[in-house]
Formats: sequence, C-alpha cells, structure tokens
Amino acid sequence: MQAADRIPATFTDLYELTMAAVYWARQMNDPATFELAVRGLPPSRGYLVMCGVESTLEFLEQVRFDEPALAYLASLDLFEEPFLAMLETLRFTGDVWAIPEGEVAFAGEPLVRVTAPLIEAQLVETFLLNAVSYETMIATNAARISQACAGREWVDFSARRNHGIDASVRAARAARIGGAAGTSLVLAGQEFGLGLSGTMAHSFVMRFGDERDAFLSFARAFPGRAVILLDTYDTDDAASLLAELAEQLRAEGALPRGVRLDSGDLDSLSRSVRATLDRAGLGDLQIVASGDLDEYRIEQLGAAGAPVDGFGVGTHLVAGPGSQLDAAYKLVEDATGPKLKLSPGKASLPGRKQVYRISDGDHCAYDVLALHDEVVAEGRPLLDHVMANGTRTSAPETLEAAAKRREIAVGGLPSRTVALEPLPPPYEVRLTPALRTLRDRLRASHTRAVGTTP
Amino acid sequence: MQAADRIPATFTDLYELTMAAVYWARQMNDPATFELAVRGLPPSRGYLVMCGVESTLEFLEQVRFDEPALAYLASLDLFEEPFLAMLETLRFTGDVWAIPEGEVAFAGEPLVRVTAPLIEAQLVETFLLNAVSYETMIATNAARISQACAGREWVDFSARRNHGIDASVRAARAARIGGAAGTSLVLAGQEFGLGLSGTMAHSFVMRFGDERDAFLSFARAFPGRAVILLDTYDTDDAASLLAELAEQLRAEGALPRGVRLDSGDLDSLSRSVRATLDRAGLGDLQIVASGDLDEYRIEQLGAAGAPVDGFGVGTHLVAGPGSQLDAAYKLVEDATGPKLKLSPGKASLPGRKQVYRISDGDHCAYDVLALHDEVVAEGRPLLDHVMANGTRTSAPETLEAAAKRREIAVGGLPSRTVALEPLPPPYEVRLTPALRTLRDRLRASHTRAVGTTP
Repeated sequence: MQAADRIPATFTDLYELTMAAVYWARQMNDPATFELAVRGLPPSRGYLVMCGVESTLEFLEQVRFDEPALAYLASLDLFEEPFLAMLETLRFTGDVWAIPEGEVAFAGEPLVRVTAPLIEAQLVETFLLNAVSYETMIATNAARISQACAGREWVDFSARRNHGIDASVRAARAARIGGAAGTSLVLAGQEFGLGLSGTMAHSFVMRFGDERDAFLSFARAFPGRAVILLDTYDTDDAASLLAELAEQLRAEGALPRGVRLDSGDLDSLSRSVRATLDRAGLGDLQIVASGDLDEYRIEQLGAAGAPVDGFGVGTHLVAGPGSQLDAAYKLVEDATGPKLKLSPGKASLPGRKQVYRISDGDHCAYDVLALHDEVVAEGRPLLDHVMANGTRTSAPETLEAAAKRREIAVGGLPSRTVALEPLPPPYEVRLTPALRTLRDRLRASHTRAVGTTP
Repeated sequence: MQAADRIPATFTDLYELTMAAVYWARQMNDPATFELAVRGLPPSRGYLVMCGVESTLEFLEQVRFDEPALAYLASLDLFEEPFLAMLETLRFTGDVWAIPEGEVAFAGEPLVRVTAPLIEAQLVETFLLNAVSYETMIATNAARISQACAGREWVDFSARRNHGIDASVRAARAARIGGAAGTSLVLAGQEFGLGLSGTMAHSFVMRFGDERDAFLSFARAFPGRAVILLDTYDTDDAASLLAELAEQLRAEGALPRGVRLDSGDLDSLSRSVRATLDRAGLGDLQIVASGDLDEYRIEQLGAAGAPVDGFGVGTHLVAGPGSQLDAAYKLVEDATGPKLKLSPGKASLPGRKQVYRISDGDHCAYDVLALHDEVVAEGRPLLDHVMANGTRTSAPETLEAAAKRREIAVGGLPSRTVALEPLPPPYEVRLTPALRTLRDRLRASHTRAVGTTP
C-alpha cells in the first residue's frame, strides 16, 4: 500500500512548480491561506462525511523532493538552479485547520484550511484535493449505506472495483468511518486493524464441481466461521443441500456461520433460503447478500422485510452519482489581504473562515460561515487546529472515534437532509454580516478595477 | 507512486486466502485457467481500449508475502502453520495471455487469461480485476476524448480528481495510450517519461492582484513556453490586457505560448479572445480550454468551429458513466476439465479461449470467440502469450507503440461502433460452433445434476 508518508512531492501538477518558481524569483513567499471546499453536493446527496485528514497530515509531515525528483525537475530545463536548491530543503512548515473525520459537512464550507509560506501551501494542492475529495466521497457513500442498512452490518467489498491500490486501502478505512463493520481487503485489515470478512467464490464451487464436497470442505476448514455461497448453480437447491448436511456438520462442530446470496431476486431468495435453513434447525445461520447492491436496493430489501442479516457492498461504494466531489483549493488570504475569485460559476468567498454549527434542540438547524476572528457564540466551531508549524497538534485518533462522530453527526441531521433522496430546502449555510460585507467590498473593487482596464 | 512491483500479496480479498487454505489442505493445487472479461459495456460505450497489462506483469513478477504480511495472517487465527509456510515461498509461476495495451476489445472477450497452479491463479484475482478494469476504463475514456478532439491536442489534468495516488499516475499512462499528448502530473512524467503540461492557477493572478504584473512575471519566467490564464476576473478584459502587453513581451523575447480559458461560454469566449489576440499580431498564441470538459462538450466546440487549439481534461477522464467496468475473473478450466457458472445474469463461457478479429476490407467486421486449440484462419488472434512460467516473454513495449496500436484499432472500427453515442447493432462477438457445443453440453449436465439433487 502507498502510505501517505511515502508519497513524493512530485505528486503535484506542473503549474504548482512553475508558479512557485515565479514566487521564489519575486520573493513572494510570505504566508498565504488556502481553503479546500466542495462547490456543490453530488446528485441525491444532502450532506458530506468528512474524511482525509489523516492522509493529509501524514503527507504534510514528510513531504519532500528526493534526489530522483530533483534530477527529473532539472532535466525539464524549466527551472533555475537556486530554485531547485530551495526545493531540496523544502519542508511543510505551515498550519492546518480541518473539520474532523466523521463530522458532517456541506458544500461551500472549508473542509481544510492551510496557512503556510505561499510556495509550500501551493505545492500541496494536488495531493490535498485528491485525498480529501476521494476519502470524503467514500465516507459519505458509506454513511448512506449504513443508513439504508438500519442497524444491520455491512462490509466493504470494493477492492476489485476501486481505482488502484491506495484507493482501495483508503476506501476500506473511509468505509469504516462511514459505518462499515469491516472489509474483505487483507491489506486494509493489516494496515488499519479493520475486521476482515470473506466468504467463498463461485470458482471454489466450480473447482469442486460438486457443491456437497465444496460446502463440507469449506465448513470443516473454518468451523463456526464459514459463509457458504449458494448461487453458483441454483440458490434454493444449494440451500436444501446445506440443510441436508446440517446434522453431519453439527455433529462435527463445523456448522457454518452463514450463507451468501450473490445474484437473482434477493428478496424472494432470502425468504425461501431462510425457510429452508429454519426447517433444518439452522435458524442461527446468517444470510448475507451481495451483488451490485447500493443504498437504495438495501433500503428496499429492508422495507420489504427480506430476511437478510448483512450486506457486502463493492461497486456502489466507489461508483455512481456520488463518485466525484467537485472540490477546489482556493487562495482566500495572503500578505496583501483577503482574496476572491470571480470566474463564472467558480466565485469564492474571501478571508480565513471558521464554520459554526447551530443546534435547535436535538438536531442541527443550520451552519454559519464566519471570518476566523469572529465568534459565533451560539454555534459549535467545526474546524480544529490539527497542525502547527508543520507538526501535528495531537496524535491520530482511532477509527472508532471517527466512526462514532459520524454516527452522532448523521443522527443529528434534519430528516429531510439525511434522506437518501434529500427533500428541500437544502441544509442552510449562512454567512455572517462581516463575511458578506467583505465579499461585497472585494467584488466591487474588482469590478471597478476591471472597468478601468484599458 | 505505488509501482506495481512493490504491491504486497495481501492486496487480495480474504476469501482468496481461505479458499487457498482449503485447496492446500486438499492438495487441489493443480493448474487452473481463469479469464478476466468485462460483462457489459458502460453506457454510451461501443468499445473498450485494453490497458493494464504492464501493471499485471509487474505485479505477477514479484508478488510475495513478506514478513509483516505473514505475521498479520498468523494473527488472524484462521490459517494453519504449514499453509502460512507455503505462502512464504509462494511465487507466481504461471502463464498469462493478454490482449495488448491499446488494442480494442469488447464485452465478453477474455482480456487476460491466467493459467497457473490454482492457489496462485486465485490469489491474484483482486489485483488483476482492480488494475485491468481501472486502466482499461481510463484508456477507453481517453480514446473517446481523442476522437472528439479530432486531431487537436489534449492533456490529462486528472490528478486532483482521481481516486488516490497510483490511480493518478496510472491514469496519466492510460490516457497517453488513449491519445493524450501529456499530463499535468509531475510524478507521472517522471515515472513514464510523459510530456508535462501546465499553465497557471487563478490563485497566481489573485496573489499578484494585478493581472498585468502576473502575466508579465509568468511570461518572462518561461519565455515562449508560458500559458496565461485569462478567466480569474474577466476573460475578455484579460485578453485585451495581454494584447496590450504583446509588443513589450515580443521585444523581450518573452511572448507566451498560449492562453487558457477555464470557465464561462468557451465557444463565444474563444472567438472573442482569438479576435483580440489576432488583432495584436498574436496569431501564433494557442487557445487552450479546460473546466469540466468531456468528449461531448469538446465535440460540440469543434463542430461549432470554436477556435480552441487544445484541451485539458480532468474530471471526465475518470468520472461519469464510464467510471466503472463490470469485470469478472472466472474459472474456465481446471484439471477436471472446462468449467462454467450459471448464476443468473452472471453465466460464463467455459474453456480456455482465444479472440479472433475478422476484417472486412478496411474495417473490422466482427470478433470470434474460439477455444484455445481452434484456429480461425480468416481472423487475427488478439491474445498474446505475455508471461511463461512466471517470466515475461518480452520486454515492456513503449507507450508510443501502444498509443499507435490504439489509433489504428479505433480507426478500424465501424463508424456506428466508434460513435460517441454508438448506434445499433452492437459490434458482434460470435462463438465458434465448438465453443457453443461445449457450453451447451456443460449447461445440460449441470441442469441434470441440479435436477437430481435431493
């Protein structure tokens, strides 16, 4: 796995370096603040679950240009020697504020805020956008799957569907924060201490040819832990076979833990399989469903009362309408003051900001975007100071702590916001009067400036 | 970057290991053949562009369980000591056949075929599905973007939108095979010798505050190579400013190479900017467009005659309807003969297969799936023998060779198949009579077997 503490500084877009070269030559390396925010929520999403802070901090703590990277940059014939010499000693020395992992967030809110010498803050943009967007997308999808499961367990089966290696490992981690009980990916279990889950493949049954031999061999190899796959040929026949083998396996102390259905009409199959198992005294065997499941299908199965005890989710954890967050990392303030961008559809809010969440009894009512120096007394500030002068302010928290935070945060959302298809109005993110005033003043000054361009 | 030659063997789903443990205990480790195929094409896709062979071979050449992995597996209390001892010495010793990178392929065709001792063949499933699905998806999307560009250049801008680190690096590589001229990702340039491309960010202009100073500084820093971003405040005003600076920059030998438009109505803005630049004698400056572009938008701009010379594509290289391939890795033959699976919607074709492409003059007409031992004399076989006994049969080919293969292969497709919205009928993949007969015979025997289950 590609741990974030081994990712080279050349994981950056070329323009970060060309801009840095100009800043360096012009001695414009005074501290600047960038904020990473999602411009709009993907379709059908009413909220985001923050993730990617840990990857960000691991990356920033160690990011550097190594010897091969510097040699490569020199070969491009784009950069002058003093600039490359500066890169050789470059470390991230800035401050980072972030919404903690597992917390709920909304479009337009700064998820991460970086204040650092301009060159450092600029060079890390590509990694931060990649990591925070991706992990937040997965944690958000996972939270929706957990909602749909309504208390039943589900497991991340996404490794074969993911985009690469570290994407798979980090998906398992983000899924845990979003509420998954575990993962099928051994490397992710090894890396993060996640619970591992696995059943058997169709190829196993096909190799044995005979389901009887396949089921007996697997059950005996993992007594009390095996999950038997029923749909290689015919699901109901396979359930009947297992029922027939029950007495023998019980006598050997080798009853399986459950069965898996991976295709067909999961609602009706789960009922017939449940009935077959129950008749054979196998009421304790769990039924696990998989096969192109998403949060909607899981919710339907639950609403229909299908006797499914757990789910495996692969493709739809990482794909579908929520597979991309439209995030941006924007300069909001530098030595010359607060900044904004006016590009159509991409206008930004100036100044270093804090997000406050305002509660209304048991639920959160709305959020307020405020300038960093303001205090919104009735609200709870969401951005924590997680890195100071390039060093973490505290040790990494456990995944369980982040998962618990997600559970509480999602539970505190208004029902219209938390619905799988959110209802209007969208959760409100207000601006303080001071922030509005600053934005309007800067907009006006740019409009004037543009108006006087010859 | 996570090169495939450093990915641990624990990048695998738990069930691969639990099945392997049973195979080991039962001495069922005779050679077996698995085929990796895509079940159906994603929406709007008429063809696939094969990619991921190089990652597969790099992985297979070195895959092993290292000390930490073995210690972790032992800690799970699932596996017996002799099995873990076997894993310690496990190497991939099998044979691999694959459709070469850049070649066009279709649903149902084996893209990769692995023959190896059953345990080896099974354990590598997760990686192969992940790598081949992902890279083929990117190369396919890239080929569509190249079609839409109709000869104009485009560059991969996807690093910040990708799902993780190695996904980004491999996206740049697959995009090159699909026809991209280069990438913005420095690490990918370093890794694969890809051309690097970059412009400037809005934050650069915002930091300067004054566009005049920003443009002059950037152009002077990279004489003849700079691409100036025009849309931070107002695109037409910025173009006028650049026109005003032209004489001065020309005198200094520091004219930029081009300009970039990143928002707004790209059709009308490209025309007004082109006119402004041309009036100032800047007819050589290229106009590069970016900002949420996909193949449809690019095709529209081209069809409208918008004077855009090049494109940067990020999000839509990796997201959207084509962001997932529904691939499977299926046991097709083992020591006991050819195998198939009957699961509803997931039925497979038995036996080791070869794909033949049948031409009809300048274009390919249809493909034929044949058993490996058959010869379809009128066709060109697509699967190459790329690994024998765990060793590559030849050195890696250049990216340029794969890109050229893609260009020829896509150019040889029927126009209905290559269209961005393909027209019926879909490109045909026929089965030889021998393959059909084998399938029908195995189906019938399984149906009989199921019918006699008590």
